[in-house]
Amino acid sequence: MSHNTFGHLFRFTSWGESHGPSIGCVIDGCPPGLKLDETYIQQFLDKRRPGTSKYVTQRQEADQVKILSGVFGGKTTGTPISLRIENTDQRSRDYGDIKDVYRPGHADFTYDAKYGFRDYRGGGRSSARETAMRVAAGAVARKVLGDGVVIRGALTQIGSKMIDGENWDWDEVVKNPFFCPDKSMANEWAEYLDGIRKDGNSVGAIVEVQAEGVPAGWGAPVYGKLDTEIAAALMSINAAKGVEIGSGFATASFSGTDNADEIRMQDGKPLFLTNNAGGILGGISNGDTIVARMAIKPTSSILTPRKTITRGGKETEIRTKGRHDPCVGIRAVPVAEAMLACVLADQKLRHRGQVG
Amino acid sequence: MSHNTFGHLFRFTSWGESHGPSIGCVIDGCPPGLKLDETYIQQFLDKRRPGTSKYVTQRQEADQVKILSGVFGGKTTGTPISLRIENTDQRSRDYGDIKDVYRPGHADFTYDAKYGFRDYRGGGRSSARETAMRVAAGAVARKVLGDGVVIRGALTQIGSKMIDGENWDWDEVVKNPFFCPDKSMANEWAEYLDGIRKDGNSVGAIVEVQAEGVPAGWGAPVYGKLDTEIAAALMSINAAKGVEIGSGFATASFSGTDNADEIRMQDGKPLFLTNNAGGILGGISNGDTIVARMAIKPTSSILTPRKTITRGGKETEIRTKGRHDPCVGIRAVPVAEAMLACVLADQKLRHRGQVG
Amino acid sequence: MSHNTFGHLFRFTSWGESHGPSIGCVIDGCPPGLKLDETYIQQFLDKRRPGTSKYVTQRQEADQVKILSGVFGGKTTGTPISLRIENTDQRSRDYGDIKDVYRPGHADFTYDAKYGFRDYRGGGRSSARETAMRVAAGAVARKVLGDGVVIRGALTQIGSKMIDGENWDWDEVVKNPFFCPDKSMANEWAEYLDGIRKDGNSVGAIVEVQAEGVPAGWGAPVYGKLDTEIAAALMSINAAKGVEIGSGFATASFSGTDNADEIRMQDGKPLFLTNNAGGILGGISNGDTIVARMAIKPTSSILTPRKTITRGGKETEIRTKGRHDPCVGIRAVPVAEAMLACVLADQKLRHRGQVG
Amino acid sequence: MSHNTFGHLFRFTSWGESHGPSIGCVIDGCPPGLKLDETYIQQFLDKRRPGTSKYVTQRQEADQVKILSGVFGGKTTGTPISLRIENTDQRSRDYGDIKDVYRPGHADFTYDAKYGFRDYRGGGRSSARETAMRVAAGAVARKVLGDGVVIRGALTQIGSKMIDGENWDWDEVVKNPFFCPDKSMANEWAEYLDGIRKDGNSVGAIVEVQAEGVPAGWGAPVYGKLDTEIAAALMSINAAKGVEIGSGFATASFSGTDNADEIRMQDGKPLFLTNNAGGILGGISNGDTIVARMAIKPTSSILTPRKTITRGGKETEIRTKGRHDPCVGIRAVPVAEAMLACVLADQKLRHRGQVG
Repeated sequence: MSHNTFGHLFRFTSWGESHGPSIGCVIDGCPPGLKLDETYIQQFLDKRRPGTSKYVTQRQEADQVKILSGVFGGKTTGTPISLRIENTDQRSRDYGDIKDVYRPGHADFTYDAKYGFRDYRGGGRSSARETAMRVAAGAVARKVLGDGVVIRGALTQIGSKMIDGENWDWDEVVKNPFFCPDKSMANEWAEYLDGIRKDGNSVGAIVEVQAEGVPAGWGAPVYGKLDTEIAAALMSINAAKGVEIGSGFATASFSGTDNADEIRMQDGKPLFLTNNAGGILGGISNGDTIVARMAIKPTSSILTPRKTITRGGKETEIRTKGRHDPCVGIRAVPVAEAMLACVLADQKLRHRGQVG
Repeated sequence: MSHNTFGHLFRFTSWGESHGPSIGCVIDGCPPGLKLDETYIQQFLDKRRPGTSKYVTQRQEADQVKILSGVFGGKTTGTPISLRIENTDQRSRDYGDIKDVYRPGHADFTYDAKYGFRDYRGGGRSSARETAMRVAAGAVARKVLGDGVVIRGALTQIGSKMIDGENWDWDEVVKNPFFCPDKSMANEWAEYLDGIRKDGNSVGAIVEVQAEGVPAGWGAPVYGKLDTEIAAALMSINAAKGVEIGSGFATASFSGTDNADEIRMQDGKPLFLTNNAGGILGGISNGDTIVARMAIKPTSSILTPRKTITRGGKETEIRTKGRHDPCVGIRAVPVAEAMLACVLADQKLRHRGQVG
Repeated sequence: MSHNTFGHLFRFTSWGESHGPSIGCVIDGCPPGLKLDETYIQQFLDKRRPGTSKYVTQRQEADQVKILSGVFGGKTTGTPISLRIENTDQRSRDYGDIKDVYRPGHADFTYDAKYGFRDYRGGGRSSARETAMRVAAGAVARKVLGDGVVIRGALTQIGSKMIDGENWDWDEVVKNPFFCPDKSMANEWAEYLDGIRKDGNSVGAIVEVQAEGVPAGWGAPVYGKLDTEIAAALMSINAAKGVEIGSGFATASFSGTDNADEIRMQDGKPLFLTNNAGGILGGISNGDTIVARMAIKPTSSILTPRKTITRGGKETEIRTKGRHDPCVGIRAVPVAEAMLACVLADQKLRHRGQVG
Repeated sequence: MSHNTFGHLFRFTSWGESHGPSIGCVIDGCPPGLKLDETYIQQFLDKRRPGTSKYVTQRQEADQVKILSGVFGGKTTGTPISLRIENTDQRSRDYGDIKDVYRPGHADFTYDAKYGFRDYRGGGRSSARETAMRVAAGAVARKVLGDGVVIRGALTQIGSKMIDGENWDWDEVVKNPFFCPDKSMANEWAEYLDGIRKDGNSVGAIVEVQAEGVPAGWGAPVYGKLDTEIAAALMSINAAKGVEIGSGFATASFSGTDNADEIRMQDGKPLFLTNNAGGILGGISNGDTIVARMAIKPTSSILTPRKTITRGGKETEIRTKGRHDPCVGIRAVPVAEAMLACVLADQKLRHRGQVG
């Protein structure tokens, strides 16, 4: 069962609500002997942390991670790694206005339909705050993968404004608050998002993640395919509405001659002349860069009044005040990287288990 | 672990290769007392069966399913349902030309990289023949869901030719060999695919599946989300390269005011004024129609010679003869329906288990 | 995978080491709407707590449980329940004498063989301290089962001294420090254990647990049998070396006429005239009391010097000082109850999921 | 979920009923490249096969296994291995007398209580016939373990007649129809069982299985312990009522000085001077021989009339005619060996996956 657990041999279970005392996760199946400390994990959390620029939520959370178990003498022991982050900014407020009203686009109605009630304090379990623990787990997953596998992500589209792939420069990603690999688009986005933010509106985005250095042979047909698990991993992220691998939806309009990546030899190894496959064939890595993309819908919390209903079934309107991300896609980049890392770490161990 | 098993409480394990004696699956966790016979399952298999029109592979397979266990007195017993289909058209042929050559776009290279060898007879385990068992499992899943849930699918795009959503008519889907809901586009596709087929080429497609009648409350945060599992289910289908829910990738360019579906009351129940969410919020069904789409890449087996390498690492070319689908997306429609049915059946039982 | 997770629909994952900052668990799949608070859980933990009598370890641990998530407004929400206990008595000491020596009967050598090193501070993850979290999870499991199912346990043997089953009185169990249901044997054990304790020795025990009120029909053939999962649950407890159901090992010498429990009707329900089956037939509950027993080996930490080896492969001797249980079987009683509760809660939900 | 599936990385799913057309299993996660053919598997099935002596059921089943997938060119491919055995002796008979009556000691009542009906033809899914597939899966598991691990079993007790451990001779096991390692006891059992059989009665037994050559380090704390999984594996076998590891229940009366196995060095490796632990400490193998025992209750199908009830709740009596095992423990020996092999194969792969 996978309700709050992700992965198989390398797996983590997350817990916690946005307005509870803390959130955390338990990572199980991690190989022993890996160097691990809080500072290392923290650097990844800091990329996702709220309040880092005016383009993300102004909630103030230090997101300081503590390791509670599974590390001894600076190294992983092979037993469960428990991580915890205190919720420090549980701003005391009056929930009277939203307590009994379902916010459109949020999980308020569905949690109530499922469980018979809901945690109305900021979304409870459905809050994107949970993704902090994915980032923490992903940091550990990177250790499992080792330095040979490089995972990184970028934002390729905000609203209708798409980067120019020709301008892609990984060095740019860290230089702007959008994880944008296209320098000129970063400036355009800044202006564009300022407008969105001032309007109290929000906008969607597309995130791309890549993994270089994955050897050929990871993945497992037919329901444990690498792309299957990447799709699940990314779609499980809050606000995700679509996932694609390699050329993805574009392949629908390709012909067979356009699509299948031809192969040559280079330095004694297969070289794929194109990468429409996104590094995966038949659910198994082919040694080329793994490429996945996901669509993130716009934040549903906006200032414009929206038609909705109350718990009691009365029609009403709601206007969501509060400290929200004008483009939640930005902070989804480190989360997507982390989920890709977790899938790959798990598949690495499973491959090693079955094939040796 | 999920290598060849799909699902949790309602789950199936498939086995078999395209050129082995037979293929099959074992369905476990099915509730007892459901009426089930071979004729019922067969009708779904017949929709996916090869050789039904000139637009699909001419391989001749009757795909006659046999129930070997789990049904007694015409009803499911609650114990494993074993299903088997004999492979009847294992045309004896000389594989000498492809035995040691990796077909681009196929899993030949990756299976070899993973397992140290491959079954060169038609793809072995990576063959789309495996999807017959998904369709069989999906037929049983529909029984679990009951008549209140209606699952159906259609092809919305072949190559660059997209249907006009305004023309959508479910009655048309069964009247053409493409599962096309747009009558005028069906004619256009016929001509278009004739050309593709005669060129020995192939083309991609987009499949849409819908489930009506799903009650609000199915699904399970945060790694067992309904959309997460639908994404995994569809991405596990051969040739799938992308999956989206509701408005999917389009939401990337939406603003918050465009996106979140407003709610009114109708007949004492919530009515969503739009369905960008595709019937799912926070990973849980909201009672609206569940809508998912997937991109299917063009068949990689084409007549045009393609650059590739041999097992021994020599550069060469390959031209794939044989009986292939010019658009494998067509036969993916019943497969996608089946996978959606399996996800929903499993989530129904899990919801009932946890919440009662 | 089940390394540090127990259960399927109702499942928990435990973490933590005996000498780390804290231990905890995450319970997932709990139904929503159940009343739950720390005081309720605490009462079960207090039964297992060290330092409650001279017959158990003198380590001082308050074992105060905190609920960190999954409960809102005093009720379970259906999302993960995170529980934590601080380790307060991590007595600072010099481990120099045992750091590089494997204690016979402990997991020191095997953890090192598996992971390449070990946490030498009191056993680390292999410490019986982990069982506190089982007790906490079991308390929640009891809520899932409801008042209709009564789970209780007793000690039936310490060393060679067995209770007389004729004297069984559940009311006695809470009146002595041994969970002994036989008043006269409780006095005998007190004297016997005093001797063992003063000798710095230890002794084994047998624990019996029972569940009354389980309806017929829980369990799932053939690898998810109720007795299979009870066997796993009990054998996973530290120091367990044997498990039996109903008449257990005694049935080996029974004849068919002795063994099979005959059935009559009483008050419109089946009445089993004997209960050799221990309430389970074919892996499914039959409505009679479920009865299981487990053998607990003597604590391996004793004052008598024992032959052993060092990490470096040198022969040596060890004498384990410290605060140990002369009969660890005593504190295993609430742990065994908890594990039985967890198995039953999970099976209840799985049964409801599949059969409705 | 583990209802009809056993194991994690190396796992199998069994299906089929005693009186259906066939039974089978699907083995998933098997490493590629292992030599495997039907003749090899058959030798293990022949040890469990009915009709081999007058001390086992006279049902005539050839139990010829067929490999339907997962083997290519005589070697495993890494994809699912499907195995099938036709049921040839489904003797046509009148079930009128047992159709509506619950046989005491059988799963008739509990299957009906769970599923709402039952397959009255010989037990259906609850029949010991299912264990043939465990033996087949176990044969494959032995291949995964390789020649370095030797798994074998013996019967150590029939009814009240126990072997003398001093006489243990593995060579004797194959020389008598009881898998008895004590030559003199084999003769005694022959006479004893003749009497039981002629009386139409039955008797219980104890099976011991051992695995030699398991390296130190397999197993996984705390819920995936090696002994936990062996306990589950053996308890899942039909008619099993108890399981113990090493000195098992006897350790309850041991003192700490008796119990913990002392360690010396021999040929540069640790040597345990005794093996009360049964080769497992803290759930992890210590390199010594793994020893487990299970109690098998007497066959419930006997000629003596027994009190029972009908489906309709009427009191009646039943006398079970037919071809039954006077001591079903005999044929449980190869089944127990197989289950031990499956646990070890799975743990081997999981260990390799996590630790490398």
